[in-house]
Amino acid sequence: MTATSSTDLSSELLHAQIQSFYAQQMQLLDASRTTEWAETFTEDGVFATNVRPEAATGRQVIATAAAAARADLAAAGLMHRHWLGMLTVYPQQDGTVLAQSYALVIETPRGGSPSLKHSTRCDDVLVPDGNSWLVKRRLVSRDDIG
Amino acid sequence: MTATSSTDLSSELLHAQIQSFYAQQMQLLDASRTTEWAETFTEDGVFATNVRPEAATGRQVIATAAAAARADLAAAGLMHRHWLGMLTVYPQQDGTVLAQSYALVIETPRGGSPSLKHSTRCDDVLVPDGNSWLVKRRLVSRDDIG
Amino acid sequence: MTATSSTDLSSELLHAQIQSFYAQQMQLLDASRTTEWAETFTEDGVFATNVRPEAATGRQVIATAAAAARADLAAAGLMHRHWLGMLTVYPQQDGTVLAQSYALVIETPRGGSPSLKHSTRCDDVLVPDGNSWLVKRRLVSRDDIG
Repeated sequence: MTATSSTDLSSELLHAQIQSFYAQQMQLLDASRTTEWAETFTEDGVFATNVRPEAATGRQVIATAAAAARADLAAAGLMHRHWLGMLTVYPQQDGTVLAQSYALVIETPRGGSPSLKHSTRCDDVLVPDGNSWLVKRRLVSRDDIG
Repeated sequence: MTATSSTDLSSELLHAQIQSFYAQQMQLLDASRTTEWAETFTEDGVFATNVRPEAATGRQVIATAAAAARADLAAAGLMHRHWLGMLTVYPQQDGTVLAQSYALVIETPRGGSPSLKHSTRCDDVLVPDGNSWLVKRRLVSRDDIG
Repeated sequence: MTATSSTDLSSELLHAQIQSFYAQQMQLLDASRTTEWAETFTEDGVFATNVRPEAATGRQVIATAAAAARADLAAAGLMHRHWLGMLTVYPQQDGTVLAQSYALVIETPRGGSPSLKHSTRCDDVLVPDGNSWLVKRRLVSRDDIG
């Protein structure tokens, strides 16, 4: 797909398409399908946070980190659900899209009550990939870290 | 409306349409309009959960169960809000749509603070109904039940 | 823009457009961009709640109240995130749109855990403004107030 994809869509359709992309992406992670989840990043994708100074760079590194985190959750009997919302999308001249959103992590222990684990802001650079998108760069900023 | 409706819509429009359907459905339930809420299921609709082995089958049974649950909430001075998100939709050959999402129940006591009552996954089979949809089969899986 | 804008859009596009408007609006408020946030209301906009009997009327009054509330949050080291969802939109004959939704306020103290501060219902009258919308009248009803 060419870089014109985002400008071929009306902004409403683009918004709906990217919302749908994120829903798929979050479902993959929460289902522990970490290899497929990592494939929603570009091969050279970057996952940065305001928690650690170093970012995870490259699909393989991102996949490995996610798999380790998922294994820890499973061992602890915890279910995580990632909710992403309040999405705004800004198509750029180069065909990428700046996607800004909020994301929540909701944690439920087996036999227990759900709670809000994290409230965050998510700033993504997305690149077109056929009828969908890939994350080229993600910055997750947790609200508890000033 | 014929079963071709879902394939006539672009996937973005379909996603937006079903998101809108769910918003209406959740608002009806939380407003205790349980008869209208039950009418968002097919006449032979099925509402299953991972909480009880037996499903509620048929619009009338679903309506009666919802009305009883709402009466209990009102008696206890509790407000519930159902939030559905992270929606993915998969049109099927037969005109139905598999709709997978997360759903939260947020509970607020009169004079108190809101809390997350339930975090769940919701798997629906939707059938077209004019410009909207009906739930033919719903499976709600609570995250606290392994 | 004429009042025909909302009827020129399919209901799915309208839903997506208004969802996008709200995402921008919430992001402005949570980023303390209160002047820009107030500009998402009409000049004579009204912001009413079920918390206080008197409404805030006029963009300037709304902006001032928001700035004061944001200053209090900053002084207390609290981050607020407004999430709006379960949106339904009803175009009216006069070109306005009734937009009904739920809204959450998620509060995170610096160094602490997020919690649900408020669960509310939001009833807006929107008027078209170019490719977007302005709030002419908002009523926020907190769930804890019967």
